Amino acid sequence: MTRATFTVVGGGPVGTLLAISLARHGYKVGLYEGRPDSRKTSIYQGKSINIALSDRGWTSLEKIGISADAKKEAIPMSHRAIHSVDGNLSSLPYGQEGDAIWSVSRGGINELLLDIADDEPNITTHFQHRLVDIDFESRASTFRLGNDDELVVESDFVFGADGAHSKVRRLAHSLPRFSYSQTYMPQSYIELHIPANADGSHKLEINALHIWPRKDFMLIALPNLDGTFTCTLFLNYSGETSFESLQERSAIEAFFKANFKDAMQYLEDPVETFIERTAAPLFLVHVFPWSFHRTVGLIGDAAHAIVPFYGQGMNCGFEDCAELDALISEHDHDWDKIFPAYENARKPNGDAIAELSKRNFIEMSDLSGDKRFQLRKKIEAKFSQQFPDLWTPLYSMVTFSPEVPYSEALRVGDEQNTVMEKIMALPNIENDWDEQRVMDRLFSLASETFGDKQ
Amino acid sequence: MTRATFTVVGGGPVGTLLAISLARHGYKVGLYEGRPDSRKTSIYQGKSINIALSDRGWTSLEKIGISADAKKEAIPMSHRAIHSVDGNLSSLPYGQEGDAIWSVSRGGINELLLDIADDEPNITTHFQHRLVDIDFESRASTFRLGNDDELVVESDFVFGADGAHSKVRRLAHSLPRFSYSQTYMPQSYIELHIPANADGSHKLEINALHIWPRKDFMLIALPNLDGTFTCTLFLNYSGETSFESLQERSAIEAFFKANFKDAMQYLEDPVETFIERTAAPLFLVHVFPWSFHRTVGLIGDAAHAIVPFYGQGMNCGFEDCAELDALISEHDHDWDKIFPAYENARKPNGDAIAELSKRNFIEMSDLSGDKRFQLRKKIEAKFSQQFPDLWTPLYSMVTFSPEVPYSEALRVGDEQNTVMEKIMALPNIENDWDEQRVMDRLFSLASETFGDKQ
Repeated sequence: MTRATFTVVGGGPVGTLLAISLARHGYKVGLYEGRPDSRKTSIYQGKSINIALSDRGWTSLEKIGISADAKKEAIPMSHRAIHSVDGNLSSLPYGQEGDAIWSVSRGGINELLLDIADDEPNITTHFQHRLVDIDFESRASTFRLGNDDELVVESDFVFGADGAHSKVRRLAHSLPRFSYSQTYMPQSYIELHIPANADGSHKLEINALHIWPRKDFMLIALPNLDGTFTCTLFLNYSGETSFESLQERSAIEAFFKANFKDAMQYLEDPVETFIERTAAPLFLVHVFPWSFHRTVGLIGDAAHAIVPFYGQGMNCGFEDCAELDALISEHDHDWDKIFPAYENARKPNGDAIAELSKRNFIEMSDLSGDKRFQLRKKIEAKFSQQFPDLWTPLYSMVTFSPEVPYSEALRVGDEQNTVMEKIMALPNIENDWDEQRVMDRLFSLASETFGDKQ
Repeated sequence: MTRATFTVVGGGPVGTLLAISLARHGYKVGLYEGRPDSRKTSIYQGKSINIALSDRGWTSLEKIGISADAKKEAIPMSHRAIHSVDGNLSSLPYGQEGDAIWSVSRGGINELLLDIADDEPNITTHFQHRLVDIDFESRASTFRLGNDDELVVESDFVFGADGAHSKVRRLAHSLPRFSYSQTYMPQSYIELHIPANADGSHKLEINALHIWPRKDFMLIALPNLDGTFTCTLFLNYSGETSFESLQERSAIEAFFKANFKDAMQYLEDPVETFIERTAAPLFLVHVFPWSFHRTVGLIGDAAHAIVPFYGQGMNCGFEDCAELDALISEHDHDWDKIFPAYENARKPNGDAIAELSKRNFIEMSDLSGDKRFQLRKKIEAKFSQQFPDLWTPLYSMVTFSPEVPYSEALRVGDEQNTVMEKIMALPNIENDWDEQRVMDRLFSLASETFGDKQ
């Protein structure tokens, strides 16, 4: 039988994975990417953007039948390496023994997926095709080519997988009853760089995500395979200590020296880089619906741009693809059913991970500052090890439990929070936390709350 | 001294009031409206859109020095007249003796303000000038005229007072770090009409806002001076009983007869009107900031479009104008200070009335359905009369207490809610509510919560 045709706008990791999934269901797919093919031209300009991939991402890749080749090029990070102001290092594991999140190169995983797409006879890939317009009624998509020519592509269905700044989504603003929001965080960010040692080894511990938490701002570093680290400085856009207030070279130098003294010996020209680069904003996008006329859909960051503080952006986009993949089979290619089922299943999860990722800035940037917070984590970890069926810490639900939807993790996490507030309010908890009666009290509260549910 | 020049986009009630306020501070103001002058052409096409004006609106008009001429053309509504499914009428007062909200003609109050603007030598008013673009750097505003010519207007400052669909706001979407959201409600609406009796008198009680609350949908009617009522039917856009599901004439007839039996004898061709008219959507807009480059600002619905269920839209817009008016004096025309002070003062109040107006659909459409809700109102009213310093009901704070900011009303209302939940949870409250010990308990809870605050 002849299957319908799809236009997929955006050849990033999510768009390419979607194209592969659709092609394997028998659809003819045109995959359109605005930028040149990174495999042929170096468009990353020496930048090694890396992102965290965790169990949801891997599971989704496996579900679509893509073997985990990418894992060979990924670096497991089993814990946070926390750098205090005075240069002390401490370690906070991400989960149980054997749990890890993975540092992967965004470009690397994208190219791996593009290679797989190239082998699919149902996919034709077009680079330097930038979307300029869509007729939502006729699904005619107009692209501007590298040579400024315009091309109109007609297809039965269109998917916008064109990222946080999605043109498909922005074009949909004019459609009736389309709800949308774009919310800026107070923080912006710049990327910094830690080079490899002369022998190619890493200057910092490799199997860790390094954090310099400074409450209102923070620096993080993720390892790359070539011995380097990609660092990100998150700092308020305006206010007392901010990108706006730090203008003078001397002030910037003083800022780095006062806050990141131990990192200064590794970072490559941080002050120069700070001066040269424009801080990039962080924003969240919420929209609904995620489909229009049952023929045009949104997926990945185009549907739910989030902030990077939970390391879940690409994981969530890959989960969207896996859900859609399953629904195509479940509804036997009936897109009148697939679109509503897809957006109703994924919207609550997109909202939940957006909320969780927003909240996690405080958790990350305050990690080493708040003794009571660390104590709480310690009590939770101890209890979770004793009663794993009754308590999985929120971070583990989000990161290591793909079977728990994000929305469920958020709900359970809020209930855990209520329980832990009662525990932390026990008199003298700072000293007594390791005593059996604290575990007994927690068991009683947790059983009451989760006994029949979790 | 020579004052700066302002372009005000939008000649509705808020834009015109703003222009008057600016002109009286000595600024030269160009007031630009896309539609023709309603005083010269009948652009309302027989429609008599009316809105509720209450103490905040009147107070704001007085603060700007506009005498309450409008009150002569307004009809006080002291209570809700609630029409049950079986045709029974009951009455629920809006506040204490003497309190009322006012039904005013939107066109009427707009024309009154335009007349006042015409008398201000500092204002030039331009109709059929529709904004098409703004250069946010140079403040050059481009308007398309009635004859399709384009006109570029330069001024020192620009205000977008161009309503819920604000073009100024939509043009600002492309500015960096501008957060915006537009959220559709499940309900849409159409307007219906109740004509006057042959002798010009009203077919229903004049000094009431009539409500036919049917839980998931409702009909309301506001009186006009000419003996007619303007009615609005709020109904879900899609779902079981909805604008989408009600397509057949017979089904629409059955819907009206089953739900609005007593209204059917007054309404003019409701079934025909239902078929002919396109249901209008309801949406909320949240944005921040409300100003750009300290030279371009948003005001009224352009900054905070809300839903009509609290009758506060125009009141809130007039309050924006009054706040700005006061800040111009306070900061002695220093707009570098006025813009941030204005948006920081008004944003929390815009957010609060948006939230309150959204919640109030349930309160309005469920008013007569929920016995416990009515009981709660009764207990609150009794307590408030005994202890007015300790308890002003939320509706009265919003509607009759201009000295209480919306944000404060929302906060106190939520605390009252917590207290009342405890009261409503008392065993046998349905029968005992009038006993002294219930008042005693409420006094104790309220003193605890509000003793030092309210």
